[in-house]
Amino acid sequence: MSIRIGILGYGNLGRGVECAIKQRADMELKAVFTRRDPKTVSLLTENVPVYSVDEAVNMKDDIDVMILCGGSATDLPVQTPEFAKYFNVVDSFDTHAKIQEHFENVDKASKEGKKVGIISIGWDPGMFSLNRLYAESVLEDGATYTFWGKGVSQGHSDAIRRVEGVKDGKQYTIPKEEALKAVRDGENPQLTTREKHLRECFVVAEEGADKAKIEATIKAMPNYFDEYDTIVHFITEEELKRDHSGIPHGGFVIRSGKTGWNNENTHIVEYSLKLDSNPEFTASVLVAYARAAYRLNKEGQTGCKTAFDIAPAYLSTKTPDELRKGLL
Amino acid sequence: MSIRIGILGYGNLGRGVECAIKQRADMELKAVFTRRDPKTVSLLTENVPVYSVDEAVNMKDDIDVMILCGGSATDLPVQTPEFAKYFNVVDSFDTHAKIQEHFENVDKASKEGKKVGIISIGWDPGMFSLNRLYAESVLEDGATYTFWGKGVSQGHSDAIRRVEGVKDGKQYTIPKEEALKAVRDGENPQLTTREKHLRECFVVAEEGADKAKIEATIKAMPNYFDEYDTIVHFITEEELKRDHSGIPHGGFVIRSGKTGWNNENTHIVEYSLKLDSNPEFTASVLVAYARAAYRLNKEGQTGCKTAFDIAPAYLSTKTPDELRKGLL
Repeated sequence: MSIRIGILGYGNLGRGVECAIKQRADMELKAVFTRRDPKTVSLLTENVPVYSVDEAVNMKDDIDVMILCGGSATDLPVQTPEFAKYFNVVDSFDTHAKIQEHFENVDKASKEGKKVGIISIGWDPGMFSLNRLYAESVLEDGATYTFWGKGVSQGHSDAIRRVEGVKDGKQYTIPKEEALKAVRDGENPQLTTREKHLRECFVVAEEGADKAKIEATIKAMPNYFDEYDTIVHFITEEELKRDHSGIPHGGFVIRSGKTGWNNENTHIVEYSLKLDSNPEFTASVLVAYARAAYRLNKEGQTGCKTAFDIAPAYLSTKTPDELRKGLL
Repeated sequence: MSIRIGILGYGNLGRGVECAIKQRADMELKAVFTRRDPKTVSLLTENVPVYSVDEAVNMKDDIDVMILCGGSATDLPVQTPEFAKYFNVVDSFDTHAKIQEHFENVDKASKEGKKVGIISIGWDPGMFSLNRLYAESVLEDGATYTFWGKGVSQGHSDAIRRVEGVKDGKQYTIPKEEALKAVRDGENPQLTTREKHLRECFVVAEEGADKAKIEATIKAMPNYFDEYDTIVHFITEEELKRDHSGIPHGGFVIRSGKTGWNNENTHIVEYSLKLDSNPEFTASVLVAYARAAYRLNKEGQTGCKTAFDIAPAYLSTKTPDELRKGLL
């Protein structure tokens, strides 16, 4: 019998989950739930119903895992605890400062509902977090570095678009090669924000707008750009559409550590991602952890978990024997 | 209270474990057990006793985890099941074809002794296995490639030394750049053995030996060299000692996978290690899993486990709260 999945929220991430389910023989998409008028939402998959989010609870016996595809700012803090009472849930909550609070809320709700809630799944938090934990546990004496990019930052692109005179724009976060090299060479450098990443902006200006002023405003924007070296390119709307409509991302987690009686040996552990589509990769991780949520709950487990709490074998379709024979 | 560790077998790996324990505040080296005459073994750590392996069982209440540092060919298949009856154990068993049999033997023994036995820990099997599993579970439609090196292969170095006229020698396994590039570019190439790795040998010949014959013999050696492009350098004993006395290693696990409704997006997940000392890094992984063995057994778990069966949080000294706040 396949694992029956529900998707709550049908944006880029929800569509990514839909695509990931299509690839997986052990899963079936049961329904999509939306806050929009369901009649206005058309899925890629045929013969799967779209319902209002208000109807979700009525389907609690028809769905094994609900994958929550809303945003971390306002959707997930409310939705994940709410739905964890009725469903096994997986979310991609990524507001680092509020993860502990979110964990506690989801833990309470999912224990109450005797369900499993897995939070903060994706690549960062998610795969990057796992690599930070493994590398640090193995190389206890060392330093861990996380670099993001090259990739599109949604938040920074939004920030550009709010500048007066800007019609549209896209921002790429780019790790600096010199910084990556110093880390890979085992130098354990102290890196400032400016030394780690570069920000490159592609901006479409409104007709007649003051480009020099736009550029200066972007570069001075606190939190977003002022602590970085920022490059601003002005391009046409057509160029933006042609060359910058993808949502690529990626990054690097590198740990450099020492071993030996006198710490004489250096080791570099590096994990990197190069992703054509940020939401589709995030969705692929969500779906693997949906499988884990289903299995853990079948075993009688309840409560909130993160990637740290879940043995890797739960993510695979292979049996323990197959894993030992094929992947160990 | 610290975790009391025993080391069984005091070669390069055993010494690596000793060094790793020195770095860890939550562990203490309780004793080293050897098959040699204990009086001939002197440790790096002061005031730690060395005993004959025959005395180990007498110390079963004084040691929380025994780390088995013997070889996979003949030591571990016997030692791990034997000691798993009395101790939580961790080993680095790496004979891929016999892992299932070893698992079953250790499982039976450790259940009988109400202990936890963790096998096949290190980097391959070990960290590489974990990365194969995670990447494959996330990117279901794709291909995984493992490359080893650049690093010293003990088995191939031994093979060289058995050739007539060879006084000493060292062999490096080197991944081919073209192959790495094709994989990283998402081409999903079919790679032959010859296309993946190069073998570079540094050989010290006996005086008056026929170097041409040595080179031809090495290159034709079945299983070891015949399926590879092999480079043979003749050097002096002094050069070998000066330039090739380290035991570096490393490698790459790369998964290339597709997502999207029509598999239109490509993602590359890459994990790599660059290790100054192969045995010291392996030892560092063993020690992290020793911590896990201790904790799992404290929780009442028994039986044989691999890295696949253990939630990552068990490896860290940090509390679940600290992990969520600091690493997620």
